[in-house]
Amino acid sequence: MNASLTKVLSGIIGIAAGLLVAFLVFGNTGSSDMATTNKQNKSNAEKVYVPPGEHDEYYMMASGGHSGQLFVYGLPSMRLIRQVPVFSPDPATGYGFDDASKEMLNGYKWGDFHHPAISETEGEYDGRALFASDVGNNRAAYVDLETFHTTDILEIPNVSGPHCAAFVTPNTEYLFLPTRFSVPIGGEYAELDEYSEKYKGVMTAVKPDVKNKKMDIAFQVMLPPWAYDLSDAGKKLSNGWSFLSTYNTEEATTTLEINASQNDRDYIVMFNWKQIAKEVKDGNFTEVNGEKMFDPAKYPGSVYLVPVPKSPHGVDVTPDGEHFIASGKLSPTTSMYSFEKALEAIEKEDFQGEAKGLPILNYDSVIDKEVEVGLGPLHTQFDNNGNAYTTLFIDSQVVKWNLESGKVIDKAEVAYSPGHLAAVEGDTANPGGKWLVSLNKIAKDQYLSVGPSHPESMDLVDITGEKMELVANAPSQPEPHYAQIINADKIKTTEVMDKDEKRKNAVWSKDEAHIERDGDEVHVYGVAFRSRFVFDAQSDKPDVVKVKEGDTVHFHMTNIDRDEDITHGFGINGYNENFEVQPGETKTLTVKADKSGTFPIYCTNFCSALHQEMTGYLLVEPK
Amino acid sequence: MNASLTKVLSGIIGIAAGLLVAFLVFGNTGSSDMATTNKQNKSNAEKVYVPPGEHDEYYMMASGGHSGQLFVYGLPSMRLIRQVPVFSPDPATGYGFDDASKEMLNGYKWGDFHHPAISETEGEYDGRALFASDVGNNRAAYVDLETFHTTDILEIPNVSGPHCAAFVTPNTEYLFLPTRFSVPIGGEYAELDEYSEKYKGVMTAVKPDVKNKKMDIAFQVMLPPWAYDLSDAGKKLSNGWSFLSTYNTEEATTTLEINASQNDRDYIVMFNWKQIAKEVKDGNFTEVNGEKMFDPAKYPGSVYLVPVPKSPHGVDVTPDGEHFIASGKLSPTTSMYSFEKALEAIEKEDFQGEAKGLPILNYDSVIDKEVEVGLGPLHTQFDNNGNAYTTLFIDSQVVKWNLESGKVIDKAEVAYSPGHLAAVEGDTANPGGKWLVSLNKIAKDQYLSVGPSHPESMDLVDITGEKMELVANAPSQPEPHYAQIINADKIKTTEVMDKDEKRKNAVWSKDEAHIERDGDEVHVYGVAFRSRFVFDAQSDKPDVVKVKEGDTVHFHMTNIDRDEDITHGFGINGYNENFEVQPGETKTLTVKADKSGTFPIYCTNFCSALHQEMTGYLLVEPK
Repeated sequence: MNASLTKVLSGIIGIAAGLLVAFLVFGNTGSSDMATTNKQNKSNAEKVYVPPGEHDEYYMMASGGHSGQLFVYGLPSMRLIRQVPVFSPDPATGYGFDDASKEMLNGYKWGDFHHPAISETEGEYDGRALFASDVGNNRAAYVDLETFHTTDILEIPNVSGPHCAAFVTPNTEYLFLPTRFSVPIGGEYAELDEYSEKYKGVMTAVKPDVKNKKMDIAFQVMLPPWAYDLSDAGKKLSNGWSFLSTYNTEEATTTLEINASQNDRDYIVMFNWKQIAKEVKDGNFTEVNGEKMFDPAKYPGSVYLVPVPKSPHGVDVTPDGEHFIASGKLSPTTSMYSFEKALEAIEKEDFQGEAKGLPILNYDSVIDKEVEVGLGPLHTQFDNNGNAYTTLFIDSQVVKWNLESGKVIDKAEVAYSPGHLAAVEGDTANPGGKWLVSLNKIAKDQYLSVGPSHPESMDLVDITGEKMELVANAPSQPEPHYAQIINADKIKTTEVMDKDEKRKNAVWSKDEAHIERDGDEVHVYGVAFRSRFVFDAQSDKPDVVKVKEGDTVHFHMTNIDRDEDITHGFGINGYNENFEVQPGETKTLTVKADKSGTFPIYCTNFCSALHQEMTGYLLVEPK
Repeated sequence: MNASLTKVLSGIIGIAAGLLVAFLVFGNTGSSDMATTNKQNKSNAEKVYVPPGEHDEYYMMASGGHSGQLFVYGLPSMRLIRQVPVFSPDPATGYGFDDASKEMLNGYKWGDFHHPAISETEGEYDGRALFASDVGNNRAAYVDLETFHTTDILEIPNVSGPHCAAFVTPNTEYLFLPTRFSVPIGGEYAELDEYSEKYKGVMTAVKPDVKNKKMDIAFQVMLPPWAYDLSDAGKKLSNGWSFLSTYNTEEATTTLEINASQNDRDYIVMFNWKQIAKEVKDGNFTEVNGEKMFDPAKYPGSVYLVPVPKSPHGVDVTPDGEHFIASGKLSPTTSMYSFEKALEAIEKEDFQGEAKGLPILNYDSVIDKEVEVGLGPLHTQFDNNGNAYTTLFIDSQVVKWNLESGKVIDKAEVAYSPGHLAAVEGDTANPGGKWLVSLNKIAKDQYLSVGPSHPESMDLVDITGEKMELVANAPSQPEPHYAQIINADKIKTTEVMDKDEKRKNAVWSKDEAHIERDGDEVHVYGVAFRSRFVFDAQSDKPDVVKVKEGDTVHFHMTNIDRDEDITHGFGINGYNENFEVQPGETKTLTVKADKSGTFPIYCTNFCSALHQEMTGYLLVEPK
C-alpha cells in the first residue's frame, strides 16, 4: 500500500473513531453526524485557544536551522511570539549592526542553529539560559533568558559543524558540541585519500559562566573520523557520562547516501566526562590550535563504543538515567540499552573488539530490549508515565511505547516526515507530559500555498490520555531541528533595563546629550524618548548631527523611556543602518560618513502617537 | 477615568454581555455560569480554529517594517505561514547570498517595508503581484504572488523614505510612492536653513510590468517640502485621481514633535494622475537625476490641496470612490470629503488660498461630514455594508461608524495602540466584510514575556454582526505597518518550477553535471536531488569540488527533484555561505576561495531520510 493511500485510509479510520467517540460523548444531544464532527473539532479548538489577555502555559524554544535564529512559540496556542537573533544578523532589531553585536557576529552573515539546550539544575530546566550550536560556521551561543538577548558567541576550532546539540550536563557544568563533519586535525589541508588517518571527529566541552552570561572552551576530545549526531547527557544514575550517536563509521568521503550505509552497525560513544575533566586537569592533553585536546585512545578508561543499528539519528537518556535509547534510522526498531549493564561490561572488559583504539562493548551484554516501532525512527522523548515517544520519519508517525514493557501503545499520524519531537520538559529528569510537538520536515498541502518553497510544519499532540490525539498544526519557521518546551513560570524576564548611572557611553537626561569631536572621530552621546531624539542639548537643532565627509560618527544612544514595551528604533535613511534601543538600554552604532548629503534619522519602531515626528538629521557636508 | 480602569470596566461589561448572549444561546442546556463563560470562549475558539489538513480562508499580507520582509499569515487562524524576503537578506533561503538576489539587493543589509499593495483589476485585488515600499533605503519591490519571490527591486532617486505605500491605481497602471522626508532636490547637499527653498517632497509614479514581473519609474511629481503619509488611489467615480495626506506643512526641521504640530490644518493632496501622465508624455517635465520631474506649480490644473485637521496619518477612499476620509491624529474627529464637491470646487475655482503655488480648495465646500470617532484616529477600512472602521491610537480602540449617517455604531477595545488596520479586501471597490485585524503597536502584557523587546500584536475582530467582537489575538513579527487581506482563492501559486531545458546554467541530469575551468574561474554545473549533490559526473568523487586558493568558484546548482516541497539547501561549512534551490530551480553562488582547507558542503534544508548524508566537499588547496 503506498503512503498516500495509507494516509487516506487512516484518515478515514481516524474520523470514524472520532465520530464514535463524539457519539458516546455527545450522543444524548441528538446531534446529527455533521454536528458531531464539529463537536469534536470544537474540543480541539478549545484546547489550543488562549483568549486575548491570557497567556500560554509553556514556552517552546525551537531551533531556527539555517535561519540561524531562535524561534520562541507559546504553547498550546503555537503562536510565534518572537524571533530571537542568535547566529545571523537581524535587520529588525539591528543585531549585527550596532558595534557590540557586530563584533559578536564577527562577519558571519548566517548560521545553522541546530539544537537548543536550556540550562539545567539537577537534571531539570532552570530557565536561566539557552545554549545553541551552529553547524554552518562552528559556533556556540549563549542566550540569556532574562532578556532573551544573545550575550556570547564562541567560535570553536578543530571542528566542522557541531551538530549534536549544545546538550548540557545535569547541573550545566558543561555543554558538549561534537562535530558532525570530521576535518583534518589542526586545520591543515589534507587530501580525502588520507581521511582515515588525518581527519578527526572532535567533541568540544564548553564551560558556561552563568554569572557573566559567557562561555569558554574547557577541553576537546579527539574521536575517530565519523559523523556525530544528536546526543544526550546522562542523569541521576548515569550522571557523569554522556552519549553521542555516530554514523559514517565507514569513513566514506563521497556519495554518503550509499557509502555511509554499508555497515550493519554504527556506534554510540559513551564518555565519562568527569574522568576526562580530571585527566585534562592532570595535564593529560596536547594543545591543538590553542585548545586542550584529550586523546582517549592514549588514556584508556574514559570512552567506550556501543554498537547500534545503522545510521542512528541521536541517542536519548531516559528520565531516570538508567537507560539510553537509539534508533538506527534505516532499521524498523529502536534499541534500549541498560546503563548498569554497560558499566558491568566495562568492568568485566566484556568487549566485542575495538575501533580506532576505543573498546566496543558487547552488544548483547548491554542491550535491554529492541522495540519494533516502525519505519525511520529518529528521536525519542518521554512523558511522566514511563512512556517514550519516537518519531518515524518514513511512516510519518509518532509512536508511543512503554519503557518497561517495550510494547507499542499507539501511533499518531503526523503531516509529514517528522524529524525531531519535543514533549513538555520531555528530555529532562522530570518530564511534564501533557503536550508533544512533532517537528515535521515536509508540509506539502497542509497550509495555504506560498509558492515552491514551503514552510515546515508542527503538529501538536495531546499526550494526556492512553491514546495520543492530534489537536492542531501550525507552520514553523525555517528550520526547526530540535525544540524544548519549558513551563512558563520558570522564565523570569527583565522588562526594563536598569538605569545604570555608571554605564559606559550612557546619558540619562536630554539636557546632558552632547557631541564630542576628536579629529575626524565624532562621538554623539544622545538620548531617545517619546517622541524625540536629542543629540546635542546645546544646539538650536538638538536632533541634528552635522559632520564632514570622511568623518567617523559614533552614535551612543540611550533609551531613557524606562517603560515596558517602549523600544525606539534608529534608522538612518539612505545610510543602510538601523538598530533598536530597548527601554533603558544603551547601544553604539559606528558610521563611516563617506557619502555627503542630507540623511533623515527616524524612529523605526513605533513608540507613540507622535512616532512619525520622532526624526532628526545626519548632515554630511561635502569635502 | 484612567485608561486601564476603563479597560477593566469595559472588560467586565464585555464579559457580562457575553454571559447574556451565552445564556440566550445555551441557556436551555442548564449550564452553570462558569460553563457558560467557557461556551463563549468555545465559540471564539471555534471561529479561529482551522483543523489539521484544512486551509485558512484568507491570506493576510503584512508589512514587516524594519525587518524589511513580507509576512504572510493565514486567516482566521492568524498562523504565520511564511516570511518572504524582500528588502533584507535572508540567511534561511539564501536571499542576498546567491548571485541574482545579491545583485538585486545591491549591498543593502536592511529595509523598512512599510506598505504592501496587491495588484488590482477594476479596483479589486487580482492576486498577481504585491508591491512594497522601503522607507529605509528608498526602494520599491515587486513580489510575484505565483512564486512568492521578489522579482524586482527599484532604487528611487530624489526621495527619502517612500512611506505612503506603494498604493496602486484600479488597474495597476501605476503605483505611487510619495516621499516621507523631503530632501534637497537633485541630491546635492543643502543646509537646513534653506529647507523651504531647496528641499522638495517628491511623489514617484512607478509603472509595473506584470508580464515580466518588473517595474520602471514613469515620472516624478515635485511637491512642497512636507512629509507625505499613507495615501490612496481613487476608484470608480474618482478613478484617475489619487490622494496623499501630508504633515509638517510647517516645514519644521527640528523637534518635529512640537514644531510640526503648530498649524491647525495640514492638507490632502489631490492629484489627477491621468492628466499628469499626459503632460509628461507631452514633454512637460525637466530631467532630475535621470527622472522625468513634473512641476504642478508650473502646469496648473493637476494638483490641488484640501485642508485636513492637523497631522493626519493617511487618507482612505470609500469603496464607491465617492468620498475620501482623513483623520487628523491630534483631533478627535475624522473628516469625510465629497469627491464630487471637490470637482465642483475645482471647476468654480472655489479656493481659500494657495500654498507653494498649489490651490487650496475651500474646506467648507468639500467637506461632507466630520465624525466624532474618538482620540487618535489613524486609518480607516470598509466593510460590505456601508460601514467604516477607524483605529484610535490613543483610545486603543477600533471604532465602527456608518458612512451614510456618520453615526458611531460600536467601539472595540484592542490591546494596545493600534496603528493600521486591515479588513477583508477592505480597501478595494468590493470589501468582503467578515474579519478585521487591528495592527497594534504595543503588546505590553498580552503574551508570554520575551524580555524588554516585545512583539507587536494583532487583534482579530469579527465584523459580521452589528457589534464588533474581539475573537483572538496573536503576536506579529516586526513591524506591521499596513496589511491587506485577500481571499485565498485569488492566489494561484506554482509549486514546482518548469523544467526549462534552455535555462542558462541549468543541468537537468546527474550524468551531465560537470566542472569547467577557465584560468582561475571555476564553473560547477551541478545538480541536487534526494539525497546527493553531483558536481562532476566523471569523477570518482562526484560530490567533491577541488580548487586552488585564490580561485573564484561559481556553483550553478539545479534542483532536479521536481516534487512539491522538496527544496534542497546548499551550505558551505566555514565559508559563510548558504542558499536554497527550490524544486526545479537553478541558482548560482559565487565564492572567492581565499581560504585554503577542507570545507564540507551539506544540504541545509531537510529533504529526505538520508538528508544527513547529502554532503560533499569544497577542497581548497593552499597556494
